[in-house]
Amino acid sequence: MKRNILTVPIQKVENDTVSAQQDLLAVEEPLQILVGERNVAITMRTPGNDEALAAGFLFTEGILLDSSQISAIAMDAPNRVTVTLASEDGIDLERLDRHFYISSSCGVCGKASIQALETIGCPALDRDRPSIDPGVIHRLPEVLRTKQMVFERTGGLHAAALFDPSGALLSVREDVGRHNAVDKLIGAAFLERRLPLADSLLMVSGRASFELVQKALMAGIPVMAAVGAPSSLAVELALRYGMTLLGFVRDNRFNIYSGQGRFNRL
Amino acid sequence: MKRNILTVPIQKVENDTVSAQQDLLAVEEPLQILVGERNVAITMRTPGNDEALAAGFLFTEGILLDSSQISAIAMDAPNRVTVTLASEDGIDLERLDRHFYISSSCGVCGKASIQALETIGCPALDRDRPSIDPGVIHRLPEVLRTKQMVFERTGGLHAAALFDPSGALLSVREDVGRHNAVDKLIGAAFLERRLPLADSLLMVSGRASFELVQKALMAGIPVMAAVGAPSSLAVELALRYGMTLLGFVRDNRFNIYSGQGRFNRL
Repeated sequence: MKRNILTVPIQKVENDTVSAQQDLLAVEEPLQILVGERNVAITMRTPGNDEALAAGFLFTEGILLDSSQISAIAMDAPNRVTVTLASEDGIDLERLDRHFYISSSCGVCGKASIQALETIGCPALDRDRPSIDPGVIHRLPEVLRTKQMVFERTGGLHAAALFDPSGALLSVREDVGRHNAVDKLIGAAFLERRLPLADSLLMVSGRASFELVQKALMAGIPVMAAVGAPSSLAVELALRYGMTLLGFVRDNRFNIYSGQGRFNRL
Repeated sequence: MKRNILTVPIQKVENDTVSAQQDLLAVEEPLQILVGERNVAITMRTPGNDEALAAGFLFTEGILLDSSQISAIAMDAPNRVTVTLASEDGIDLERLDRHFYISSSCGVCGKASIQALETIGCPALDRDRPSIDPGVIHRLPEVLRTKQMVFERTGGLHAAALFDPSGALLSVREDVGRHNAVDKLIGAAFLERRLPLADSLLMVSGRASFELVQKALMAGIPVMAAVGAPSSLAVELALRYGMTLLGFVRDNRFNIYSGQGRFNRL
């Protein structure tokens, strides 16, 4: 179990007080799935049972029909599973080539996204801007909740919202896919030439995955707050690019995983 | 807002009583994103703000850098957005070709998955088997919760578990991606030649998306129970293949969205 969980130092804020603590993060790492020498998928997953994950993925995607088609399945490099076929009979190899899947806990992710950040040159975040107040953060969940019109009626949607540093709501989007809700917010700003969103806070209704942090960084968003937990890779990416990443933002409490410098009052 | 929500008939079970009601579902439909004539992505999303979604996706994935690269963006067919480029200068077209993304609220999804069900010939479910008891369903969430070891410590993981029809736990997996947790369960059964899982119940800790129903159907799982809400497409698929789909399974209550025939006592 040990690779499933990572311990990190955090600052825990309760009302106006802050204390240094340790927090446990669920580990999120990319897994590359090869069939022979073909790169079939990269999925962001929690390590463990990776051979079963690769087999289950290839079966549920209709690529393999029966386990007799597999002659070997092995973790032959870190975060890599290679499936060796007993024979290529009955396997749609063209289909393998057509679909190089990149999936994640919430959509497109992994290698291509890191590449995007690096090749495009993700906007460098100004580590002191904007200045944020804990009281503003405490009020965000309630505002988000009152604006989740569809969720309120169906219980079935994720929400993402942009706020200004004073906590005023700028826009909110809901979607079955949390990455789509974030893409809708960022896409509108992109089309209206409002990027980078250097004075915006992004609040999401669920957990903070690697992919959501990646999308926010592309848009130059300096502060991201999640109602749920962040993943290990989300924290790693936020630290690397100087984003303030907050988790478990609810009930007048939140954890600071990175970028505490933007809180002048803590 | 009207295309965001769909009203469906359900059976609501509370303890041992059942009543016919209406429920509201969040709409989930595939959106195809084209750049010129290139098929760049299919994402499972809630309709609305689709031009912004397409633009946001292309920007956050590093394909477009500036809105001046777009000359037009239009919904030119149902569930399809075409982005017309002002010029191809500075756009990595090879990258577009390399990455045909298929994403969803929880990973790989959409067209390829429906195709998998149809071409592979998804196992026909026996609509009377297994017989299930409401009392068994009421007990599942508590069992799942006590087995979520990593979630308990991090708050950051989805869980999926297989039960037999008497409610005995067969196996449980946790992952940052809910589709991975399900692939790990199904992949182990696939490798051990235990498919189809015709006498198994699948319980998931979150919502029931199209993709999770698709994966369960591939494995011949006849009953799926979710702690959260199902999407419209999840219900549609369950109805089509005769799966019993249950949502909001908690606190001695649940909703039956399809396949009530397996409950002899209701």
